[in-house]
Amino acid sequence: MDEERAEDEPLMLTPGPATLSMRVKRAMLHDYASGEQTMLDAIAFCRQYILALSNGAGTHAAVPIVGSGTSGNEAAIGTLVPENGKLLIHTNGVYGDRLVEIARKIRVPYTSFRTAPFTPPTAQQFEDALQADPAITHVMLVHCETSTGILNPIEEVAAVCKRRGVALLIDAVASFGAFGLDAKALGYDAVVCSANKGLQAPPGLAWVVVKKTALEAARGNAPSLTLDLWDQEQHLERTGMFRFTPATHLLLGMAEALREHAEEGGIAARQARFRASWRRLVDGMRQMGFRTLLEDDVASPIVATFHDPPDPNYSFRKLYDGMKARGFIIFPGRLAAANTFRLACIGVVTEEDIGRALDAMADTLREMGVARMGRGD
Amino acid sequence: MDEERAEDEPLMLTPGPATLSMRVKRAMLHDYASGEQTMLDAIAFCRQYILALSNGAGTHAAVPIVGSGTSGNEAAIGTLVPENGKLLIHTNGVYGDRLVEIARKIRVPYTSFRTAPFTPPTAQQFEDALQADPAITHVMLVHCETSTGILNPIEEVAAVCKRRGVALLIDAVASFGAFGLDAKALGYDAVVCSANKGLQAPPGLAWVVVKKTALEAARGNAPSLTLDLWDQEQHLERTGMFRFTPATHLLLGMAEALREHAEEGGIAARQARFRASWRRLVDGMRQMGFRTLLEDDVASPIVATFHDPPDPNYSFRKLYDGMKARGFIIFPGRLAAANTFRLACIGVVTEEDIGRALDAMADTLREMGVARMGRGD
Repeated sequence: MDEERAEDEPLMLTPGPATLSMRVKRAMLHDYASGEQTMLDAIAFCRQYILALSNGAGTHAAVPIVGSGTSGNEAAIGTLVPENGKLLIHTNGVYGDRLVEIARKIRVPYTSFRTAPFTPPTAQQFEDALQADPAITHVMLVHCETSTGILNPIEEVAAVCKRRGVALLIDAVASFGAFGLDAKALGYDAVVCSANKGLQAPPGLAWVVVKKTALEAARGNAPSLTLDLWDQEQHLERTGMFRFTPATHLLLGMAEALREHAEEGGIAARQARFRASWRRLVDGMRQMGFRTLLEDDVASPIVATFHDPPDPNYSFRKLYDGMKARGFIIFPGRLAAANTFRLACIGVVTEEDIGRALDAMADTLREMGVARMGRGD
Repeated sequence: MDEERAEDEPLMLTPGPATLSMRVKRAMLHDYASGEQTMLDAIAFCRQYILALSNGAGTHAAVPIVGSGTSGNEAAIGTLVPENGKLLIHTNGVYGDRLVEIARKIRVPYTSFRTAPFTPPTAQQFEDALQADPAITHVMLVHCETSTGILNPIEEVAAVCKRRGVALLIDAVASFGAFGLDAKALGYDAVVCSANKGLQAPPGLAWVVVKKTALEAARGNAPSLTLDLWDQEQHLERTGMFRFTPATHLLLGMAEALREHAEEGGIAARQARFRASWRRLVDGMRQMGFRTLLEDDVASPIVATFHDPPDPNYSFRKLYDGMKARGFIIFPGRLAAANTFRLACIGVVTEEDIGRALDAMADTLREMGVARMGRGD
């Protein structure tokens, strides 16, 4: 049990926080001062490993920020989009909308466009938006939009940005670690990652993989002291330390989580595990009569969204309670997709866990008196 | 050992991160989703306890932010100082200077004044600064300036602010938990606290005790999404949750640290312990011939700064290594006080630990060949 999760605690089938291994949590049982060699080594290892995952060595830097994934997005936008630039934000869900909210609050010049929530945007839609406004210098979109689970077409958008000579920022908070997002192939200025979710480290750290030339040009640009990626990076390069007292325990947990990521077999193995869980989940839920919000070919293996059963005995609260009593935490839907609920496949969850979760689901529905539904598609 | 710190790890005599109890660290060995009752209870308990410590019930709210103490300061300044306001910042050290840096970066209207580093400012100096610029609406200063260890006169400054009808913001990152900072008596708009240091919780969370009327007036003011205290508070009030994925493990550690704080006997007991350690430290170091940077009557019991011994055999690096080998981590001085080093009394450190640290210091100096110094005062 020391190397596994605590057996008496429910498994979280939530799109963050994700359940961590006990090994990662136990790595937090130590105190180190900011400048001690163990701390410097942990920070250097995390920076190097994240850079390797994104194939960013030489061209990019991995810059940590204490905060949520949203703090990472705010840091990236605030640091990289200059006052005389203009950011085009794409949204097809809650997390895209949040990028718009960041741009509005921190007062960077921006424009945004919305596409249908349950199908990915096309490259042509980005072409058109760029064509319509030649002032645009940067494009930002969410990779995996967890409010629905849709996977947006990063490669196609990166190609458009490259052709038009505009910079690309990617919110990969939900996907990084299970997806690689190659810095050389995609040529982005920034990818924003969470320590949690795909990387299975404790939440509270965000990482931004940022192009060095873009960062050099961004000196003095950020409208924030603590979310200034330029300042944080130059301090890290010079001293190996964060500018301000870091979350030392989270960094120790992070380093352990990355060692675990490597031992599992890196991105390919992690994505394969998530995908096997997701396949089992979607198939099993469909067998019970549930309908997914998305078609499989546009869905990410991170989180699946299901329509509420059309049964008067159904309520999310009862389903939540029944599943929790059986050892699983599930997640409600978001405004963008009313009358749905979500089950995620991230964290230390395996296909076997999903099998048990499906049994728990069948059990709970029986207890609730929810009839087996007809196939909805 | 389960309830104590790990015995094989050095004790940090650093002004943050502070050494935590093993009990607090073990509280982080659990995973909970943001909305689970255990998480909601932990957040509610932390909010209520910090409000009680500051005597803010009814008038103030305790608002958490994922980040360092500096993030808390940035959140307080950004949220509370409006575009048509003006912030007067006092500085007599590195942390006061950092407040100036925040104001400059986030582009709030501000002015600043500097006083001598090794003596506290007087009320008259604040009177004069306010007199000189009637546009000033807010005053901010550091309570315990840990770059020297000086304790600035909060009561006197609060009286000046009250008389002149300007709002007061206090950076109590290093002191809160060992000092109370009474919201009713001082009437401040905000006190910024760290989870770590005086409260002995893991670093990575900042807490701002903020006056409700000031917060209500600050809606829409913050030039940040993630550091907007108004937005975070209204979300907490409405849902009991953070707006964005919180650092769940840090919150669990925080709640445990606050239970420990209460069991120790609250602010009075914690300050008494720090003070006993500090007294023993300063007396013992003086017996070895060290000179303190500050006179005792202006020094805080948080951290003590000592002049380097005037001996060619002395180097901070050798002293650091010798102390580390003997189980203690010490801290260099800051630019504001060149040729000094610092020893802090925060974290789970006791007077007995300080006794052992003094023995280690004597031993290390002998090994270094540093002669016993004459009394320097």
